[in-house]
Formats: sequence, C-alpha cells, structure tokens
Amino acid sequence: MDLSRRIEAAMSAAIERAQDGGPDRLAHALNYAVLPGGARIRPTICLSVARACGDDRPALADAAATALELIHCASLVHDDLPAFDNADFRRGKPTVHLAFSEPLAVLTGDSLIIAAFDEIARAGADDAPRALALVRLLSRHTGMPGGICAGQGWESEAQVDLRAYHRSKTAALFIAATQMGAVAAGQEAEAWEELGARIGEAFQVADDLRDALYDAETLGKPVGQDAALARPSAVEELGVQGAIKRLRDILSGAIASIPECPGEAQLAAMVQRYAERMTPVAPVKV
Amino acid sequence: MDLSRRIEAAMSAAIERAQDGGPDRLAHALNYAVLPGGARIRPTICLSVARACGDDRPALADAAATALELIHCASLVHDDLPAFDNADFRRGKPTVHLAFSEPLAVLTGDSLIIAAFDEIARAGADDAPRALALVRLLSRHTGMPGGICAGQGWESEAQVDLRAYHRSKTAALFIAATQMGAVAAGQEAEAWEELGARIGEAFQVADDLRDALYDAETLGKPVGQDAALARPSAVEELGVQGAIKRLRDILSGAIASIPECPGEAQLAAMVQRYAERMTPVAPVKV
Repeated sequence: MDLSRRIEAAMSAAIERAQDGGPDRLAHALNYAVLPGGARIRPTICLSVARACGDDRPALADAAATALELIHCASLVHDDLPAFDNADFRRGKPTVHLAFSEPLAVLTGDSLIIAAFDEIARAGADDAPRALALVRLLSRHTGMPGGICAGQGWESEAQVDLRAYHRSKTAALFIAATQMGAVAAGQEAEAWEELGARIGEAFQVADDLRDALYDAETLGKPVGQDAALARPSAVEELGVQGAIKRLRDILSGAIASIPECPGEAQLAAMVQRYAERMTPVAPVKV
Repeated sequence: MDLSRRIEAAMSAAIERAQDGGPDRLAHALNYAVLPGGARIRPTICLSVARACGDDRPALADAAATALELIHCASLVHDDLPAFDNADFRRGKPTVHLAFSEPLAVLTGDSLIIAAFDEIARAGADDAPRALALVRLLSRHTGMPGGICAGQGWESEAQVDLRAYHRSKTAALFIAATQMGAVAAGQEAEAWEELGARIGEAFQVADDLRDALYDAETLGKPVGQDAALARPSAVEELGVQGAIKRLRDILSGAIASIPECPGEAQLAAMVQRYAERMTPVAPVKV
C-alpha cells in the first residue's frame, strides 16, 4: 500500500473508533476536522522514516503517524478559534467553530489530542516498551514546556525568541515525526532529531514566505496573518530573497543529517521532493 | 506519607516539569489551574484503590493519580470558558481565562491533558505493559466516544439520555480512578468498574443536590447552572428527597461492589466517609 493510502486508512479507522456511540454532533465534528485531510506531511515523514528503518511493526508506525496527524488537526481547530486566529476558513471550508459551534470546536481539539494517545496505546499491546516510548515522544513534542502548546504560549509573551518560538510551534511536531517513525521501527530517537528539526524549520520559513507572498484564494485561508498579529516571521527578519536562501540551506542540511539506515537514499529523495515543492516560484506579489 | 501529601507532592512535581523553560505566562497559568487544589477526590480514590491492592509500584500509582487530577483540572479550565459555562470564579478565585486570557486558558487545558499522559509515560519505564494499560484507561475515560469529552459533547445534542450523559461526563473519571489504581498495583481493571461507576453516580447526584440547594457563597462558584443551562439533573427528575434517597442507595451499592483485596475494609471505610460528607444536611434553601 502506498503511504498516502496507508495514512488515510489509519486516520479513518481512528476517527471511526472515536465516534462509535458518542454524541452525534461531536462525532461529526471529529470527522469534519480530520477528513478529507491536508497534505498529511507529518504522518508521511513518520512513515517514510519508519520504512527507511525497516518498518518491522507497521501497526505501531501507523498509530504513530495517525497520532501526529490527529494532534496536528487538533492544533488547527484550536488555533482557528475566535480567541486565537479567529479564522473563518480552513482547507477551503468553514472552520469547525463556524460549522458546528465554539464549544464543539474546543471539545473536538481535546478529543483529537486524547485519541492520538489512544491510538498508540491500542497498537502497542505486542510491544509495550516501544509504544510507551512513542507516548513519551508525542507528549514531549506536543505539550509544555517544549511542544506545540508551548509554541502557541510564546505568542502571549511580551518578548519572543524567534528560534525558540519556531522550534516549539512548528519544528516540535516534525521532530516528533522523524523520531516516532524511527522508534516505531525499533531505532533510537536521538539520531533522528536533527532531520526533524531541519524539516520543521524549512516548513516554517516556507510558511512565512507563503504568508507574505500569496493571496488568500490560492491558500484557502487568510494571509498576512503574521504582520496583522505581529508574529515573528523569517521574511520580516531576512527579506524574501534571504528567506528563500535560508530555506535552501536548511533543506541541504536536512538531507545531510539523515542517519545511516537501509532506506537512506529513498528518504533523501523524499526530502528533496519536499524541498522543490516548498520553494516559492509563482504567483508572487510585486 | 499520607495520601494527601503524596498527591500534592506528585502534582507539584508534574507542574514543575511542565513549566521548566516554557513560556512564562502559560507556565504560571498551569500552576494557577492546578495549585492549590480542590478536594483531589479522583486521585485520592485512585491511590486508595492502589493501596488496597498492595501498591507494589507506588511511582506508577502516583503518576496515575496525578494524571487523573491533571485531566480533571483541564476539564474545569475548558468548561469555565465563555463558550461553555462562562464562569467568573473557580475554587474562590477568578477563572483561568479571566486571570490570564482566553487563549492561555485553551492552551492550559490542552497542556494539562498532554501532561497527564506524559506523567504516566515517564513513570512507566520499569513496567511498560502496566503503564501502557494506564494510558489506555485514561484515554478511554477521557476522550470520545465514552469519556468526559463525550459527556460535554452530549450537552450539544437535542436529545440527552440522562444516564449516558452522567456516565460519561462524571462517572468516567471515577471509573478511571478505581481502574487505574488497581492496574497501577498490578490488578485487572474490569472488577473495579462498578465501584468507580457508583462513586461517580453518587458524586453527580450530590452535585445536582448542591447545585439546587446551596448558595453561591458556600460553593465559591455560580449555582442554579443546571436549570439556567437546561441541563439534566437528578433533582429535577426525582425531587430533593428522591435524590437524597438515590444517593444513599448508590453508596451502599458502591461499598458492596468492592472486589476482594487486602485493603477491602479500609476502602469501604473511605467510601463511607465520602458518603457522609456528600449527603446534604445544611444550609438548605426553603
């Protein structure tokens, strides 16, 4: 099965488990928040690393990938709330709090976070130590003090360190993706941190570039949010050309950082494909 | 160490771990939401059951108890949000969204949920299968389709089944408390479900009675919320005397349901103490 079908099958199964017999509207909201998905970048990276490492426990790798995407979707639902970005659209359709309600959007995020841990615990019966290591990685890169919750929390501080902010807000889940893919396949987490950190950094710079350069119709979400919300941005710091150069440097470093493993070449090719997709070419505002 | 000191020590340590190096305001909000605590009923039940079962892995029992209380505090922070109860006070002080901000209140809840899973994963290194079973119990009784998120979700449905609603909204975390206490001490979860369910049901009826009978000053939070929000209530269904009778019946059943274990008598005495504390005597509105 190709990675994308594997991810969608695992995501659908996870959502069905979370819906089964629960209250209807919240059950529908879970589905709405998660399916159809976006690019599924984090689970794709996770499964790519698991494959590169031999993928000897595919059910655990699927659970790790699903958990990452559930958490990512949860963070989008909460980030879109009126108290945060107050976004009306996400992936080209009304945000969860508009399509359902604000209480159901809060509960959707909460339920997806919990479902993420549940997926790993369910899949871990045959290898509890590995599953527990995955729970630990997921919580570390998701909560406080260094996960994506911390990243959002930095936005409420008077003084923001751009690197610390990006590292927890965006890079954390990419580090989780590479490390959890490796751990699901029986490898140590540490060697895979740098790859995840660099991919995460690249995505953040690419996102800053998109936010600065593209129009709302192309993105399917509001643009200019960084400037409007006075958030730190690589474009503001380095200019457009400087940010594009940084993006390229980061991705070269990412490829160089891939640890020795059976699927090293394939993994390098995947990062290279992402690099090409991420580098902006058009349409650019003058 | 008595249970209460054991719980407070474990809670403080968990919050310090979650704060360490994270953004200041969110770090303070975590502390504010959790310390000083309320009655710590769920962790007390969890540790009481673990003790009754021999408590052979106290670090894991502490983590289970802490996880339950972190989740409970998270649910209070999110329930107090303007989109839900819009509460101004909790435990006699301003709610998290008023003391900090609405975004920080959402993030505080999210971070506490994740910290709950992190605590179990950290404590589980010596016994991964047991820790993973605890993760599973926590997610099952917390998320969708049958945990406390589902309980809140039922409040967005046009038709609410009173028993299903109470079971997921309140009983779920009490079932988690008895089952996780047992599992942390190496016992099977199943035999402990009934005790948790009955204690949970009793607390819900007692809460309905308090909500109907007491004034805001005594409770330190707004009263009459059930009627104001058109929520189902045992008092509405059975009247005050009927609800008091049901409370007594449930607690007798709870004591009768305690599985055979070394600390059975002590555990029965604890439930009896809760029963006496829960049954309203005064001040009653006429």
